[in-house]
Amino acid sequence: MTEPVHLSIKPVALDTLNESVVLLARDCPALRPERLRGSRKVVLKCGAKTLIATILIADDPQLVGCHEVGVTEPAFRRLGARAGVRATIAPAPPAESLDAVRAKVRGETLDKRQLASVVSDLTNHRLSDIEVSAFVVACASFMTDQEVIDLTEAMAAAGTRLRWGADRVVDKHSIGGIPGNRTTMIVAPIVAAHGLTMPKTSSRAITSPAGTADTMEVLAKVDLTEAEMRSVVDECHACIAWGGHVNLSPADDLIIAIERPLQIDTPEQMVASILSKKIAAGVNHLVLDLPVGPTAKIRSAAHAQRVRKLFEHVAGRLGLFIDVMITNGREPIGRGVGPVLEARDVMAVLRNAPDAPRDLRDKSLRLAGRVLDFDPALRGGAGEARAAELLGSGAALKAMEHIQAAQGPPPRVSALGARVKEATAARDGFVTGIDCFRIARIARLAGAPTDPGAGLDLLKRLGDPVRQGEPLYRLHAEDPADFAMAAEALEEAHGFSISLDEAP
Amino acid sequence: MTEPVHLSIKPVALDTLNESVVLLARDCPALRPERLRGSRKVVLKCGAKTLIATILIADDPQLVGCHEVGVTEPAFRRLGARAGVRATIAPAPPAESLDAVRAKVRGETLDKRQLASVVSDLTNHRLSDIEVSAFVVACASFMTDQEVIDLTEAMAAAGTRLRWGADRVVDKHSIGGIPGNRTTMIVAPIVAAHGLTMPKTSSRAITSPAGTADTMEVLAKVDLTEAEMRSVVDECHACIAWGGHVNLSPADDLIIAIERPLQIDTPEQMVASILSKKIAAGVNHLVLDLPVGPTAKIRSAAHAQRVRKLFEHVAGRLGLFIDVMITNGREPIGRGVGPVLEARDVMAVLRNAPDAPRDLRDKSLRLAGRVLDFDPALRGGAGEARAAELLGSGAALKAMEHIQAAQGPPPRVSALGARVKEATAARDGFVTGIDCFRIARIARLAGAPTDPGAGLDLLKRLGDPVRQGEPLYRLHAEDPADFAMAAEALEEAHGFSISLDEAP
Repeated sequence: MTEPVHLSIKPVALDTLNESVVLLARDCPALRPERLRGSRKVVLKCGAKTLIATILIADDPQLVGCHEVGVTEPAFRRLGARAGVRATIAPAPPAESLDAVRAKVRGETLDKRQLASVVSDLTNHRLSDIEVSAFVVACASFMTDQEVIDLTEAMAAAGTRLRWGADRVVDKHSIGGIPGNRTTMIVAPIVAAHGLTMPKTSSRAITSPAGTADTMEVLAKVDLTEAEMRSVVDECHACIAWGGHVNLSPADDLIIAIERPLQIDTPEQMVASILSKKIAAGVNHLVLDLPVGPTAKIRSAAHAQRVRKLFEHVAGRLGLFIDVMITNGREPIGRGVGPVLEARDVMAVLRNAPDAPRDLRDKSLRLAGRVLDFDPALRGGAGEARAAELLGSGAALKAMEHIQAAQGPPPRVSALGARVKEATAARDGFVTGIDCFRIARIARLAGAPTDPGAGLDLLKRLGDPVRQGEPLYRLHAEDPADFAMAAEALEEAHGFSISLDEAP
Repeated sequence: MTEPVHLSIKPVALDTLNESVVLLARDCPALRPERLRGSRKVVLKCGAKTLIATILIADDPQLVGCHEVGVTEPAFRRLGARAGVRATIAPAPPAESLDAVRAKVRGETLDKRQLASVVSDLTNHRLSDIEVSAFVVACASFMTDQEVIDLTEAMAAAGTRLRWGADRVVDKHSIGGIPGNRTTMIVAPIVAAHGLTMPKTSSRAITSPAGTADTMEVLAKVDLTEAEMRSVVDECHACIAWGGHVNLSPADDLIIAIERPLQIDTPEQMVASILSKKIAAGVNHLVLDLPVGPTAKIRSAAHAQRVRKLFEHVAGRLGLFIDVMITNGREPIGRGVGPVLEARDVMAVLRNAPDAPRDLRDKSLRLAGRVLDFDPALRGGAGEARAAELLGSGAALKAMEHIQAAQGPPPRVSALGARVKEATAARDGFVTGIDCFRIARIARLAGAPTDPGAGLDLLKRLGDPVRQGEPLYRLHAEDPADFAMAAEALEEAHGFSISLDEAP
């Protein structure tokens, strides 16, 4: 074999987001570009570190000389190199799991070892977007229960695996899709006040107007390292943190990035996604909220039962105790939609304010009750009464204030968006439908969650009587362009159905 | 709505191959990067031109200032802009056909309009790799015949559509997978000598050691514009050109780029790919070669019949007359594998050399005969005798020399690779199997088709008796590293099976 040509590493101030990208001069002697026909993946070796990257060809010696390799921002960080250090480059061999991906695309069933190899290559960025997309789409068309179990286990094992001092580590999770529904921020303080361990990590919104992490960030810092998170949980029994620093089931994030634009939401992938994250987080007792409604993620009771069974089967086989609650997903929960408005609702419930949204309070108590029922010290079925007691007495509010103080102050002060517009009823009647999807979309156009103060404040709920011209909700935005776009969408279709007959 | 911010176009000397990429400064006022969360696609507008591109974020004002947009090489060309011209940028709306892609992923059947919209977005680079991959994988798992017909028609309509003076425009196509098999370069001159119009466009090799375009390039220029191709066909009745400049069914090239790494080779996609290219090329009479063998693309007679029926059904519905020939794909055709060696075999057949490979001659005459049978002036079944006459008399050789002269001289003189190694028989016996896939792989490792002189020269064929130590084939390479890799692969497994029993 010939000697590999050494190149000098040159940092290039380009942020290529998830992708590792390197720049090579067209006349670089280390790699004949023809060799890469059909593949742009290379292996960059620098000392003991190896990185798979995509190449771009540079035609400007100012950018990259022919004895240099330009390394862009995420790749430079991943490589942990310094400028001027020597590196070698070679065409990347195909990922080892590519045969397993191809087999799945052909409709075959994969075994535990094959699924683990796909997850490992995925986590190490050895598969291209095309290959990951093919795997995800093939899995969406057919997976056995055993494949779901094996995939979940491999995903949970692929990143950080948290362990906690307590025997019983509890959590509550909702599959999402319902605007508002910020029950976690009420359940966690109740559970903490009771004394169970609930190390809650949440996501930021991807397609919704607010994730729990976005809403909690109105009240406290959420951007915690693993060590900070541990110290909050030690001190308060619970935390409400953003999961982004903890690297729990990183394969899940990469799969979700593919599923989202394709709107893939199969039970199998929902189960693998949620349970792999919970297992990696060290949770062993989970209450799962499955909202069902005409514009929710799950639209029929029959479908909900199928999803429930799969969650129970897979969780059981992986040693996670799960309690699945099928809930009302026919309308948003609480009044606010968007971080600032949702945080307001949460604090109103915790403070036992007379005007606190009743549906948010009731649902949170039911969920918290089911979590507390995991405590062997409580009599069966006593959880909900205990939860009501902890909320009513102010113990839950104290626990929340404790968690806020331990996590630290929010990175900035958020206020409600000052540009306001109301959606009004076109005629007298009753509210017979609220389109969760449309409500979420308008709130997002208004700027949520990027602008935490943007969103919708719901003034009417399902079944409420309305008079012509009466406001249904109030839109808030800060940015003028966002306000214009959201207002236009609101005019086009505000998402409320009004009918002369009383709601069903 | 607020006024869009104008940016100044700055060319950036980066070749991003297929992808359109633009660079924006992180603090660019035209686009808050948060807006793009979950999508990196933007619309760049410059005068009347619009381009969908992926953004990279630049952190170096030398690279891109905050009032500039950096436009990389293919994007700059596609936009047809000049440096310093003003442009606006906005987040790209999702592609219109995305709903159709999602429906296909959910397992639904698409109608003509939906398939046309997918093909249009594909051709205009409005779908991401993830989305194209999802569409291709979903199609591979299920397509109705009507979907294949509609997809083929939409693909054929999406690029250049060639029209020719003649009523009868003929072609011959092989689905590939058999090393050697360079029959096109013999069929086209025979057909041209007879006087039928055969405007042959071929591909360069993607995963094989030589495509017809690579082999023809040893003998003549193949890199023809549409106008050059027309002038060659006017003068000679036929051409043997590379199809890359003519933009026939560009959607096919983009789909193939996804199918290749995933090794998707379903009958439905083969039919849509081949027939869309032929229809776009203005062909109305096609002979199709389907080789069947244990290491060919089609491995059983039953599968071949299924593929044949689908080709006939779809071609019939789209007004293309097709004659499908199921041929022997149990071993390579001809002796040489690699451009220079295959060109040698072709010329030996055309020159009626006594040592010309008989299998290549016989198969070419059968295929040419079936093409000539399309001529109503010939008596039914007289085609093969006419083909033999044109080959034997030297008329085909003259036609080939005429085509070579019209296309022009090859871009460089190619010689056989000087580094040589023989694969030898480990024992006495008969050749009972030749692994087409392995042979292709070793020839490719040797450098074919990048080095036209690299490849394998087969000395034994199926059924031949061999003595221990006797050479089976000769490996040729030019580049020392390629030679070492190919020699190593040859030592590991040369691809010939030798058995004591005579071949079946």
